[in-house]
Amino acid sequence: MDTLPSSYRLLANLPSRICSRRALAPPLRSPRTSPPKWHFTHQRRLISTVSARAPEIDRAKSKLYKDADAAVADIQSGSVVLSAGFGLCGVAETLIQALQRRGPKSLHSLTAVSNNAGIEDVGGLALLTKSGQVRKLLISFLGNNKALEKQYLSGGIEIELCPQGTLAERIRAGGAGIPAFYTPTGVGTLVQEGRIPARFDGEGNVVGYGREREVREFGGKKFLMERAVTGDVAIIRAHKVDGVGNCVFRYTTKAFGPIMAKAARLTIVEAEEIVPTGSLDPNSIDLPGIFVNRIVPATAQKNIETRKLAPSSSTPSTPSTKPTPRERIARRAAKELKPGYYVNLGVGIPTLAASFVPPSVQVWLQSENGILGMGPHPTESQLDPDIINAGKETVTLLPGASTFPSDESFGMIRGGHVDVSILGALQVSAAGDLANYMVPGKVFKGMGGAMDLVGNPEKTKVVVATEHVAKDGGSKVVQVCGLPLTGARCVSTIITDLCVFEVDRERGGLTLTEVAEGVTVEEVRAKTDAEFEVARELKSME
Amino acid sequence: MDTLPSSYRLLANLPSRICSRRALAPPLRSPRTSPPKWHFTHQRRLISTVSARAPEIDRAKSKLYKDADAAVADIQSGSVVLSAGFGLCGVAETLIQALQRRGPKSLHSLTAVSNNAGIEDVGGLALLTKSGQVRKLLISFLGNNKALEKQYLSGGIEIELCPQGTLAERIRAGGAGIPAFYTPTGVGTLVQEGRIPARFDGEGNVVGYGREREVREFGGKKFLMERAVTGDVAIIRAHKVDGVGNCVFRYTTKAFGPIMAKAARLTIVEAEEIVPTGSLDPNSIDLPGIFVNRIVPATAQKNIETRKLAPSSSTPSTPSTKPTPRERIARRAAKELKPGYYVNLGVGIPTLAASFVPPSVQVWLQSENGILGMGPHPTESQLDPDIINAGKETVTLLPGASTFPSDESFGMIRGGHVDVSILGALQVSAAGDLANYMVPGKVFKGMGGAMDLVGNPEKTKVVVATEHVAKDGGSKVVQVCGLPLTGARCVSTIITDLCVFEVDRERGGLTLTEVAEGVTVEEVRAKTDAEFEVARELKSME
Repeated sequence: MDTLPSSYRLLANLPSRICSRRALAPPLRSPRTSPPKWHFTHQRRLISTVSARAPEIDRAKSKLYKDADAAVADIQSGSVVLSAGFGLCGVAETLIQALQRRGPKSLHSLTAVSNNAGIEDVGGLALLTKSGQVRKLLISFLGNNKALEKQYLSGGIEIELCPQGTLAERIRAGGAGIPAFYTPTGVGTLVQEGRIPARFDGEGNVVGYGREREVREFGGKKFLMERAVTGDVAIIRAHKVDGVGNCVFRYTTKAFGPIMAKAARLTIVEAEEIVPTGSLDPNSIDLPGIFVNRIVPATAQKNIETRKLAPSSSTPSTPSTKPTPRERIARRAAKELKPGYYVNLGVGIPTLAASFVPPSVQVWLQSENGILGMGPHPTESQLDPDIINAGKETVTLLPGASTFPSDESFGMIRGGHVDVSILGALQVSAAGDLANYMVPGKVFKGMGGAMDLVGNPEKTKVVVATEHVAKDGGSKVVQVCGLPLTGARCVSTIITDLCVFEVDRERGGLTLTEVAEGVTVEEVRAKTDAEFEVARELKSME
Repeated sequence: MDTLPSSYRLLANLPSRICSRRALAPPLRSPRTSPPKWHFTHQRRLISTVSARAPEIDRAKSKLYKDADAAVADIQSGSVVLSAGFGLCGVAETLIQALQRRGPKSLHSLTAVSNNAGIEDVGGLALLTKSGQVRKLLISFLGNNKALEKQYLSGGIEIELCPQGTLAERIRAGGAGIPAFYTPTGVGTLVQEGRIPARFDGEGNVVGYGREREVREFGGKKFLMERAVTGDVAIIRAHKVDGVGNCVFRYTTKAFGPIMAKAARLTIVEAEEIVPTGSLDPNSIDLPGIFVNRIVPATAQKNIETRKLAPSSSTPSTPSTKPTPRERIARRAAKELKPGYYVNLGVGIPTLAASFVPPSVQVWLQSENGILGMGPHPTESQLDPDIINAGKETVTLLPGASTFPSDESFGMIRGGHVDVSILGALQVSAAGDLANYMVPGKVFKGMGGAMDLVGNPEKTKVVVATEHVAKDGGSKVVQVCGLPLTGARCVSTIITDLCVFEVDRERGGLTLTEVAEGVTVEEVRAKTDAEFEVARELKSME
C-alpha cells in the first residue's frame, strides 16, 4: 500500500465493486511504462486517417438520400461512429434508429464517440448499446443507464471516459488536421496517469485502463498531450440543410454536430427542414456542405431529457425566516458574482447561488454545453427542446445571449475567459485540490466538464460551495484529498455552511476569513480535517 | 558549402541582397542548438499569459466608448496588438487611425500580429509601421509596401513570417488555452529549420532568424510543434455589435476578427452598427460578448485592395484559334476539377483553369481567406468590399456558398477536406517537392497560405500548373529543388504547356503521361532538368 500515492489510499481501502484495491492499484505492468494493450489498439484506430470501413465518397452523386435506412445501408461493422448531441439534445435519433434496425448481425462491433450515452428505451446511443451493436464507447459522461452499466461492469463493453472539453477539442483537432495538442485539463489527475477504469472482467475487476498522457511544461505550467479523434462515419442532426449540405443548427443542438461532421470520413445529416440551395445566408452557415455527404429528412421526434419548468407565478414564494445550510452557502457564494461577471455554476448549491444575486446586478451565466446568457427555466409556452443547460434541463436565453458549439465553449473555459467557476465538492484540500467526480463504491459515471472548468485557475477563479460535513459525518475540507482529483491546486475560495476559507494555492494552506452566525472558530476546527490559520480580522458570513 | 543541404545550394550561390551566402548560411551559433537570442525573447512574450501592458478590465463598466481615441487612450507602448482583417478587408481602420494619432512619442515599440501589413497611405498596419510605432510584425504575407520593405531591410523592424493557417491556428490556440499543437504545415521547409529571415542589419545581411520547430511523428507522418500566440490588445471591426459586445461579421471580414478577440487580454471592436442588446439572434453571433471589452462606432471608410469587376457583357469574347501556352495548361488543369469537387486554385494559371470547366460541371471553389462557393468577379452593382478572394480581389458568392473565419478555413485545408489544390511553381522536383514562395534575389514577402495548401497531400491532391520553362530559360521541372521548399513530396501531378507528369511521391520519380500536340518526348527531355520514365500509353494533352 505504501507505494500508492496518498490520494489513492482512501479508495484503495474502501472495498467496493469498482474502487476495489485491484481496481485502483496499478496493473501488473505499470501503465507508466506500458499501458494495457487494448488501449493502444484503440488509440491507433481512432487516430488513423484512412480506414477501410468508411464507404467511398462520390462527389458527383446527389447528397440527398430517400431515407435514413438507405443512408446507413453500407455502414460497416467495426466502424468508428461519431454521434452528435449533448444529452438528448441535437441527437440524430432518426439515423440511430436506422442503425438499430440494421440489427446486431448486420452491424456490430461499433466504436461510438459521443458526449453521452443516451437513455435506454428513449434515445441516443443507448439504443445501440442495448442492442449489442457497440463494443466501445468514448464519452465524457455515462448518465443513468442500468443496462449499459451492467454491460460495462460485466466486460461486455469498453468505455473510455474523457473530460468533455478535451473530447470536444480532440474531435475538433481530428477534423482540422491537428494530430495532437496540449491542454491543462486533467493535469495531476487519473487522466494524466492513465488510471481511469475502461474495461472490467466478468467479476467487476478493472482489466483495462486509460492511456497515460505525456506531460510537458509551457511557461512554467504543466499540460497534457492529447491526441486527435477521427471517425469513419458521423451521424448528426441539423435544423436546416440545403441540397449541397450546408447546415444550420438551433441553439444548444449545435454542441457536437459541426466538429463531428468535420472529423469523419463520411457524414450523414438528418435535418428537420431540407431547403433549396441558395436559400441559406452564407454568413450563417454553421457547417459548410464540404463536410456533409448524405442528407435525409429527420423523422424521429425530439426528446427532452429533463423537462424543467419555471415555478408557476401563482405559487407564492415563502421566504423562510431562517435560511437552510444550503441557502446560507448559496447566499455567500452569490457575493462572488459581481456586476458584469461571466460565471459558470455547477449543479446543486452553485446554481442556487444565482437566485441570490440582486436583480440590479447583471451576471452572465455560461453553460458549458454552449450558452452564454442562460436564463431561468421556461414557462410551458417558452419550452424548447433545443435549449438545455449542462444539467440537461430545459432553460431559456436572456436578451444578449449567444449559443455556440462545445469546442468554442470549452475554448472559452480553458482559455480563462470566464471570471468565476463555482463547483460543488466531495473533498477539497488545504492546497486547493478538488475532488468532485468519483465516489468510491459507486459506479463511476465520468467527469463531464468538471476537469475543464478548473483547468485555468490563474485566470478563472475557482470557488467551492459545499456543505462543510459530508453525510457520513466526515469533513469535506481535508488536509490531503483521498478521492481522485478533479484538479490539483485549483481552488481559491471555499464556502461552506460554517465558514469561508481562502486558499493559498502557491504555498498551500488555508486561512479562515469568515464564520457563519453562531459558529465559533473552535467548532470549525473540530469539524475540519485540515490545518488552517485564522485571519486577523475574522468577518461574519452574513 | 558542402555542409548545406542541397536545397540551399542555389540560393547560397546566388549573390543577392537577401539570399546572400551570409543570409542563408546558418548563423554563427547554429539555430539547431541555439536560435538567435532576440527570437527567444519575442516568443516568451508572445505566449505569456499575463502582461503588465494590457489595461485592467472592469466588468461592471459599460463597454460603450465615445470614440476610438477614448478607447485606445490607455494602450501602452510595447504592447502586443492583434489586428484583424485579411488584406484590407475587415481591418479596424478607425482604431488603427486612432492608434496612429497617439503618435510615436506616446505609443511605440508595438508588436503587431496580423495576416498582412496593409498598404501605405491607404490602410491597415502600414499606417503604424510608417509612423514608426511598430517594432515587430508577425504576419504571413508582407504585400507591396516600399517603406516597410526599406525598414525591414535596414533593420528598423523585425518581421516573423508564419504560414497563414499556422498563424490562424496559433492565435486560435492562444484564445482557447492550448499552449501548443502539431501541424503538418511547413515540414521539410525553412519554417521547420528556423531559417526564415526575420531581422536584417543596416547592410541587408540577415542577423535574426525564425525559431526552429520541434518535429514529431504521428502515425508515421512528420508534424511541427507550433506555439500559441496571445496579445495584450485586439483591434477588430464588426458589422454589428450589441451593447454587451456580441458581434456579427459580414462575409470575408470575419477572417481573423473572432480568433484575435479571443486571444487578447483586451479587445476593442469598432462596428458599423451598434444595435440594442437582444436584437441579435443568439444562433448567429460570430463572437460572444465575453470576448469584447470596448465598443466604438466605425467611422473610417472601408478600403478595397483590388477592385476587380466582371468583364462587361458588351465585350465579345474572342476565342483565339490557337490557345496560348497558359491557356493550354489551364485547359488541362480544368480536367482535374471533377463534378462536385471542392478545390482551391492558386493565383494565375490555376485560377484560369476554372474558366475552362464546362458549365454543366458544378465545382466548389474554396478561397482560403474563408469562402466555399466562390463566384466570378462582381458587376458594378454587385461590388461588395466585404467579399474578396485570397488574392484580395473583389468576388461574388454562388448560391450554396458559405463564409467562415480563417481558423475554420485552414482546418478545412489542413484536414484534407478539399479534393484538389492547384498551385503554380517556381520549381517542382522529381520527388514531388514544390518551391513557389521565395525567389532568390527578390525581397521575400512571405508564404501566405501556400505551405498549408500542400500540407495534407495524402487527402488533398496537389497539382502543379506551370509553364515548363522559366523566363530565364531554365526548366521548372528539376531533379532536386534548389529553391526553398513550400512543401516536400507533396505534388502528385505536374501540368505544363508541354506535357503532364505523374509523380510517385512514395518512391520519388516522374512518369511522362501526356504530351501537347506537336511536342515530342525528345523535346520534353531536352527542356526538363529531371529524369523521367515514359508511360507505356503516352496520351495527347488535348
